[in-house]
Amino acid sequence: MQRVPFPDFAATLTSILNRVGFEPERAAHCARLFAETTRDGIASHGVERFPRFLEMIRNGSIDIHATPALVQAFGAIERWDGRRGPGNLNAWTAMARALELSRCHGMGCVALANTNHWMRGGTYGWQAADAGVIGICWTNTLANLPPWGAAAPGIGNNPLIVAVPRPEGPVVLDMAMSQFSYGALATYRQKGELLPVDGGFDTEGHLTRDPAAIEASQRPLPIGYWKGSGLAVMLDMLAAVLSGGLATHQIPTDPIRETGLSQVFLAIDLGQLQPAEESARVADGIVASILASNPGAVRYPGEQVLKTRAENLRLGLPVREELWDELRRV
Amino acid sequence: MQRVPFPDFAATLTSILNRVGFEPERAAHCARLFAETTRDGIASHGVERFPRFLEMIRNGSIDIHATPALVQAFGAIERWDGRRGPGNLNAWTAMARALELSRCHGMGCVALANTNHWMRGGTYGWQAADAGVIGICWTNTLANLPPWGAAAPGIGNNPLIVAVPRPEGPVVLDMAMSQFSYGALATYRQKGELLPVDGGFDTEGHLTRDPAAIEASQRPLPIGYWKGSGLAVMLDMLAAVLSGGLATHQIPTDPIRETGLSQVFLAIDLGQLQPAEESARVADGIVASILASNPGAVRYPGEQVLKTRAENLRLGLPVREELWDELRRV
Repeated sequence: MQRVPFPDFAATLTSILNRVGFEPERAAHCARLFAETTRDGIASHGVERFPRFLEMIRNGSIDIHATPALVQAFGAIERWDGRRGPGNLNAWTAMARALELSRCHGMGCVALANTNHWMRGGTYGWQAADAGVIGICWTNTLANLPPWGAAAPGIGNNPLIVAVPRPEGPVVLDMAMSQFSYGALATYRQKGELLPVDGGFDTEGHLTRDPAAIEASQRPLPIGYWKGSGLAVMLDMLAAVLSGGLATHQIPTDPIRETGLSQVFLAIDLGQLQPAEESARVADGIVASILASNPGAVRYPGEQVLKTRAENLRLGLPVREELWDELRRV
Repeated sequence: MQRVPFPDFAATLTSILNRVGFEPERAAHCARLFAETTRDGIASHGVERFPRFLEMIRNGSIDIHATPALVQAFGAIERWDGRRGPGNLNAWTAMARALELSRCHGMGCVALANTNHWMRGGTYGWQAADAGVIGICWTNTLANLPPWGAAAPGIGNNPLIVAVPRPEGPVVLDMAMSQFSYGALATYRQKGELLPVDGGFDTEGHLTRDPAAIEASQRPLPIGYWKGSGLAVMLDMLAAVLSGGLATHQIPTDPIRETGLSQVFLAIDLGQLQPAEESARVADGIVASILASNPGAVRYPGEQVLKTRAENLRLGLPVREELWDELRRV
């Protein structure tokens, strides 16, 4: 594992995107989002996903010049067409617009159709929280999870993000509806480890902690079995109904052609109702109460991100040497 | 198990509430909500909870004359004080107001502080969907679940409801953050059955399917282990921050004095953006796609409720004979 200082890391990615044809400002922004995700310890949705991002530009799934266009508006809700632009830039634009709406209406909702993978969903939660606003967002995905009762993929793992601002660092939950991602399964398998809890079914339909058996069956577990399956269905339904875009069952199942996603961005600005210190006091009280329930063992959502961020800014962003060499040759 | 026709059932409960001192219209409404919950097959939050409801009126936790009062408003968001009125009437009023707001702003949010147990959360999802509006709501609760990493209760099981209207019957998810409720654990224990999947830890800290062992340890599992724990924390934080009310760690831990809850009611009215048939077409497509993934074995959220409702309206509402005798003697 190599350590690359944040500015060098971002500059390398920016330079690649410039050569691919991005406009300079968009290249820098897109690269920064990949770099920040890597900085925050989510390499799977940062640098490790960058080669696939380039591939999807080459195969035409992502249109690097497309920007979201307003389709319809009513009060605090807007529908936007992502026009298959870069998923992270589209999502950033959508949350920025939801934040603007929340300043006027207390709450804003942007439903975005026809977009691409947003990489790390937490990015847009942090975006809201850093602006002092509560952010909630989710996306649908290709079918990568069987609905409860079925053996073949039919629902998405539809990540859900909830972020609450706080001066000491926002509280940010960023979770997919599968107990373990395929990336996590691969990591456990490569280390020769069993999962800490059941992560799916084997090909014979038995619950298992063996990551390879789940990769073989393609039957990872939704969180809470039937419950996470139901929540995944609802998130997909809300995203498709609100945006007027595609639902999971309509999204191409080839991961390098997973395009046309539907996403929802909600922002709630309490600023007109109470001072930020009052909201922070309530959030602080909850954080303190759970941390005290077993000091050192219990974490609050997002806590680890802040620690990892500080470490990676100090030491440089960790990236596999082969991958970094490959990117520098692009 | 006795079967009581819906009108007789509702009339019996109404008569009790009248004698307890409810104003006639509120008695009828409150009784109807208990009856509808029982009709829909959720007796645990319907008739089975009615005796505790009466007890909490007697011990002063519920003020039967209190109605919610508007505290603050900005755009699409309002804060209301539930003034410790009956939880189901308060919640109904809050969702009704969120629906009104959604007609004006596309979206409405009512954050309700200082209220009481809302009984079945799904009630308010059905309320929104029956009005042709998307409804999302959640509540915090007393601490009945250990946060991930701790052994003692510190978070609530905070039910979350998501409802999408549809002519053929809305899609309604109504789920708490625990894998099994204490009510469900008791039911499995009484039947001498093991849980279908791990439901918590035993007193030695091992995952178990034995319901009695979990009742003894008081360590039920959150859905998805650390994930459901995180989501429960966020739902509590949103409820307390938005409403300005109490968080789980501030709510009395005695179940018959569990009062001062915080709840959030979100309504989204797409009516100005697209005809209801278009939303229904999208929702129908998703329902059809998951049902087709294993016909007869996969259900959509809320499907069972409609079947149970039809059966109970035909045969009468099922109620334990001892309980029904007890209620008729009140």
